[in-house]
Amino acid sequence: MISSSPGGLRPPGPPDGVSWITLDRPDVMNAINPELRERTIALLDEASADPEVRAVVITGAGKSFCAGADLSGGVARERVPGDVARTIRLGAQRLVASVLDCEKPVIAAVNGTAAGIGAHLAFACDLVLAAESARFIEVFVRRGLVPDGGGAYLLPRLVGPQRAKELMFFGDAVAAADAERLGLVNRVVPDAELPAVAREWAERLAAGPTRSLALAKQLVNASLDTDRTTAFAAEAAAQEINMTTRDAQEGVASFVERRTPKYRGL
Amino acid sequence: MISSSPGGLRPPGPPDGVSWITLDRPDVMNAINPELRERTIALLDEASADPEVRAVVITGAGKSFCAGADLSGGVARERVPGDVARTIRLGAQRLVASVLDCEKPVIAAVNGTAAGIGAHLAFACDLVLAAESARFIEVFVRRGLVPDGGGAYLLPRLVGPQRAKELMFFGDAVAAADAERLGLVNRVVPDAELPAVAREWAERLAAGPTRSLALAKQLVNASLDTDRTTAFAAEAAAQEINMTTRDAQEGVASFVERRTPKYRGL
Amino acid sequence: MISSSPGGLRPPGPPDGVSWITLDRPDVMNAINPELRERTIALLDEASADPEVRAVVITGAGKSFCAGADLSGGVARERVPGDVARTIRLGAQRLVASVLDCEKPVIAAVNGTAAGIGAHLAFACDLVLAAESARFIEVFVRRGLVPDGGGAYLLPRLVGPQRAKELMFFGDAVAAADAERLGLVNRVVPDAELPAVAREWAERLAAGPTRSLALAKQLVNASLDTDRTTAFAAEAAAQEINMTTRDAQEGVASFVERRTPKYRGL
Repeated sequence: MISSSPGGLRPPGPPDGVSWITLDRPDVMNAINPELRERTIALLDEASADPEVRAVVITGAGKSFCAGADLSGGVARERVPGDVARTIRLGAQRLVASVLDCEKPVIAAVNGTAAGIGAHLAFACDLVLAAESARFIEVFVRRGLVPDGGGAYLLPRLVGPQRAKELMFFGDAVAAADAERLGLVNRVVPDAELPAVAREWAERLAAGPTRSLALAKQLVNASLDTDRTTAFAAEAAAQEINMTTRDAQEGVASFVERRTPKYRGL
Repeated sequence: MISSSPGGLRPPGPPDGVSWITLDRPDVMNAINPELRERTIALLDEASADPEVRAVVITGAGKSFCAGADLSGGVARERVPGDVARTIRLGAQRLVASVLDCEKPVIAAVNGTAAGIGAHLAFACDLVLAAESARFIEVFVRRGLVPDGGGAYLLPRLVGPQRAKELMFFGDAVAAADAERLGLVNRVVPDAELPAVAREWAERLAAGPTRSLALAKQLVNASLDTDRTTAFAAEAAAQEINMTTRDAQEGVASFVERRTPKYRGL
Repeated sequence: MISSSPGGLRPPGPPDGVSWITLDRPDVMNAINPELRERTIALLDEASADPEVRAVVITGAGKSFCAGADLSGGVARERVPGDVARTIRLGAQRLVASVLDCEKPVIAAVNGTAAGIGAHLAFACDLVLAAESARFIEVFVRRGLVPDGGGAYLLPRLVGPQRAKELMFFGDAVAAADAERLGLVNRVVPDAELPAVAREWAERLAAGPTRSLALAKQLVNASLDTDRTTAFAAEAAAQEINMTTRDAQEGVASFVERRTPKYRGL
């Protein structure tokens, strides 16, 4: 279900150090069933643990990014009374958490519609690139559902509570350009350029000081969850951890020696 | 003091399921005295409890939305030493909390000047529509006062701390277009269209899955108050609650049956 | 190292009640060494305590605002294993905290490059004015470092986590106009006008109700660190404190008497 198949966006020849995850059920707009979810989590966990992987890209096969949860099949048990919360925790929330907690920077390359948990999967990524034809839909309300997969956690952090509620209450499609203006995505690029720009961004990140990027990611992700005293203590600890890495030593040495640093992700 | 009188914006014939609250003291720009405050809180509480009400609109009679606290009269006791904090808690904060905690979506239709607590009343609403001639004024500094009614809670969540401080420190009027650009309002519309757009939005919300909208509202309102673990737990619980409703069952059923859902607010 | 020397931006004749702090090591782009840091903290602490000072401006001498930490000299000990966190706490974090906790409004007048801790020093200020030629650089990643001085605390509050990560992961220079669009600065002005606008803003603040400005600053700075209940309690207490001041009494009296208030900072 996840592949580097021709159906996916991946340009010829994978960039070094990049895990390129393609949601690959194009016949159902890459809707997430339990199998796709588990496979995506597994790939994110592998990327998180593998020292050879230094950046991750998530994209969709075909014309969509991800249509959301596949309501037709495996999620039926999410509607069993008394079992709903547990299923959400073990399902959509675990998927989103695997992005937020991945120890490598994760880029969403949103190549088409991102709806429901598909939109939240994108918003959980560290950086979001969107094709001009991409669109984002908080589709839950259309089905009588409450946004899941951390939507109410993620959206107010990106666009504030007022705009988050507009998106959630109406469930209208948001065009890529509007998403950029609102602050939901970092950059919109022409459809044809999306794979190349995603590759370029991923290569830049993969050439970076991997541990310091992970520490910065963790500090930023925790920032709005916490207060100044806690955030400052976490920052100080992160500095201590980072300074033990070869990349930090290389970074400072290259500065003093006035040359370009060569980071190895160690 | 609150009415659907000709002085108000309400278009002919109230939309079904919408509580239309008009601040109606146009001779004093709808400045809030204790009577108007208590009546507004009572109407919000009624809307919150009444299953027939599925959306709320707050607007102002005449050319203003709300000029803020009526300093000429009933607030004198707010300046009694030792009694100030209590009066704020029981006054401005309780009004704003009645909007934040209303179990129905609340739209502010800002038809003119919204100053001081009048601005905060609007910013506490879930969605804010502004007429082109509307303007927002953090007027407190002009009177030597600290913003009250949750201003320092609401504004940084909408526009960040830096812009919140600019608004509060200078107390200048912010035109509707600038307010939209900053992220203080969802949408600016021509003055003449405000009642119709507010009505249209309210009708859409009133036709929605009322319980799931309330749960989404609560999750978003709590989002920036809390951390990921707590937010995810609240989301999972909200899913469990929502899935017991008929509207959620209707939403999923209509999706499977490929038809438009008909929500009844149950 | 800090002066009102000709190297600085300060216009002739200091405005009354304004402490004008010029980072003055133009030969090294005002890079911060321990001496400059301690002197800046001392001036901020003095401004905080001195009742004659009612607003603060921080700017840079020459063509830069601040290039960041001076890695060539005094920070070597920040790389001693086991001593890194302590050094950050006593260094960059204490500098940023002295701005956040200053009891007077602080304006950054960013006259050129603000990099690393130099950028965070600006972002910690209550209001940020930028010259058209100013640029902001999260330079840490270029040196293999994790952003320090509260960057991961400050940036997500201003621009959200996604854009904060883009800035930190890439370390590219952000032009003043882009910084304004993103929400990193309040206003961009032509280079030649920066001193005059900074002076004008500072004079306005210095003529304001100093205690109520400080209370508003504290409430806003704490807003995203806390929840509604705590924020509302802090607001109520701030009202009680403020109402005991002469400026608050003057503000209300001037309103009732329909005249311009004359605040004395008491």
